[in-house]
Amino acid sequence: MAKQRVLSGMQASGLLHLGNYHGALENWVRLQDDYECFFFVADWHALTTLFQDPGKIREHTREIVLDFLACGLDPERSAIFVQSEVLQHAELFTLLSMLTPVPWLERVPTYKDKQRDLATSGKDLSSFGFLGYPVLQAADISIYDANFVPVGEDQLPHLELTREIVRRFNFLYGDCLVEPKALLTRHKVLPGLDGRKMSKSYGNAVYLSDDDAAVRQKLMNAVTDPQRQRRKDPGRPEVCNVFAYHRLYAPAGRLSQIDDGCRRAELGCVDCKKELVETFFRAFGDIRARRRALAGDPGRVRQILDAGAARAREVAERTMIRVREAMKMGWRP
Amino acid sequence: MAKQRVLSGMQASGLLHLGNYHGALENWVRLQDDYECFFFVADWHALTTLFQDPGKIREHTREIVLDFLACGLDPERSAIFVQSEVLQHAELFTLLSMLTPVPWLERVPTYKDKQRDLATSGKDLSSFGFLGYPVLQAADISIYDANFVPVGEDQLPHLELTREIVRRFNFLYGDCLVEPKALLTRHKVLPGLDGRKMSKSYGNAVYLSDDDAAVRQKLMNAVTDPQRQRRKDPGRPEVCNVFAYHRLYAPAGRLSQIDDGCRRAELGCVDCKKELVETFFRAFGDIRARRRALAGDPGRVRQILDAGAARAREVAERTMIRVREAMKMGWRP
Repeated sequence: MAKQRVLSGMQASGLLHLGNYHGALENWVRLQDDYECFFFVADWHALTTLFQDPGKIREHTREIVLDFLACGLDPERSAIFVQSEVLQHAELFTLLSMLTPVPWLERVPTYKDKQRDLATSGKDLSSFGFLGYPVLQAADISIYDANFVPVGEDQLPHLELTREIVRRFNFLYGDCLVEPKALLTRHKVLPGLDGRKMSKSYGNAVYLSDDDAAVRQKLMNAVTDPQRQRRKDPGRPEVCNVFAYHRLYAPAGRLSQIDDGCRRAELGCVDCKKELVETFFRAFGDIRARRRALAGDPGRVRQILDAGAARAREVAERTMIRVREAMKMGWRP
Repeated sequence: MAKQRVLSGMQASGLLHLGNYHGALENWVRLQDDYECFFFVADWHALTTLFQDPGKIREHTREIVLDFLACGLDPERSAIFVQSEVLQHAELFTLLSMLTPVPWLERVPTYKDKQRDLATSGKDLSSFGFLGYPVLQAADISIYDANFVPVGEDQLPHLELTREIVRRFNFLYGDCLVEPKALLTRHKVLPGLDGRKMSKSYGNAVYLSDDDAAVRQKLMNAVTDPQRQRRKDPGRPEVCNVFAYHRLYAPAGRLSQIDDGCRRAELGCVDCKKELVETFFRAFGDIRARRRALAGDPGRVRQILDAGAARAREVAERTMIRVREAMKMGWRP
């Protein structure tokens, strides 16, 4: 039996950080064992917030592709591509826009929220494309007949809208598009260096593209237990961000020793962080080595993306042939 | 020096009637002498009003293409194609949507008007695509670097919006798109059979696709001077719709005789209409013969549209290569 399909993408609105890795990418790598996967960098979507500065989008696209490949998205098994290199996404977006009521879009909870959040940063979010973000997302997903979309809870309303649009399409034009389901998966949560959610807008993120010096500097400056003012004060690992990182990266058996050392004030924060730097580089050693190698081989990256886009176009075009017939587009005798 | 470019299209929301012929098509035929022309049937646009009944769009597309060719749009000189067969329109629509503010779209005068008009006919015009109609139009035009768009006065606000979008694009990404100008041309005005504006919604139109019997029946039932109740009453050609048609189709010298005969009650309305039927068939003899021949040769029509779409794609793709670079889309090393 053919494998079921999974589709997911990352918006090229920023660089990927450890939160993205543990929250999504790590899981995507595993999904490749059980599903036929399509992974893409959404550069068109990034225009919704970065249309005034598109050079950044291309820069992010370049880095995200390296992150994808270095972290283990496997071009032999999955289609890995850039959204704008598969025109059919735009065609389906155009068609779905014709049957999506504006009020459906206005009521997406993230629409007003994001508009409010980003307005304070001086960004103009009144664009027609920003309003239509969920329609483009519906096109991205349904063009691959995706059965599943790995999403976080916060993305559920968007996916629900995709499902509504698909149902409306099928109601109007007959059973044609696949209604995708959410794939809610357990994932590790990693706080930012300051304890808030890791986010590019908080400046508290370690990026997969950070070089060794940047990683070291960021980890060494991470906020620890604020009550531990002096070396001899006992610490509380449960409120310490550095400890949260140790939870993910410390070798077996070592975590309880760190916990203990901290509480007894035997292990100081500086040493604790130095240790984290080492274990982090160990945990990400292979990924970082692969990343460096790929960064030095743009020809290989281009080749992978060409093959990914070709595969994506092939599947997307098959869907569009059905869609065009269902919607009776084009000239026929 | 290369000819300047003209772009125009007809929405596949209905069949073309004599009003469309004299108001636009007749002029387009002439434009071919002086410009490099791109003429298309806008089937995607028709979805803004007919998305619930797309079978009609395809039917209209088929008829409009025959009208185009029969009336003299010349595939040897002009690119004649169907919008949905050139995907790049959707790509540019997607990109332009990212930089077009929603308020620009809401203030287009025809937006609220059309929404109000069509709401009474039970049509749902709240779609995102309907709101974005002028963005798709901006894409249709600027993708061919069109210098001129032949428009009626009522279309000027739409074209002005295209120009605004193009200026915004060029401001954000550097000089890339051509700002099109309106080509306001004198054209003949033909009333509908009942004296109102000829329109499919009034049921007062003679279609280019009407067969002989339909044309005859429609013309014979046209409203004449309402004060001429009996054969012996003198008529007033200046308020008579049939006379308005004679103005266009009567052979030289005959018009003043008809005018005279009507005023003296020497020429009755029935005879006057019979004469109109004959002169109409004479005036449209070649067009109607070409139309019948093409209707019987779908292979030839397909061939013409394939060539037109290929030519359109070639030009559109050249523009999109510039646009993608200006907006920094896609992966580059």
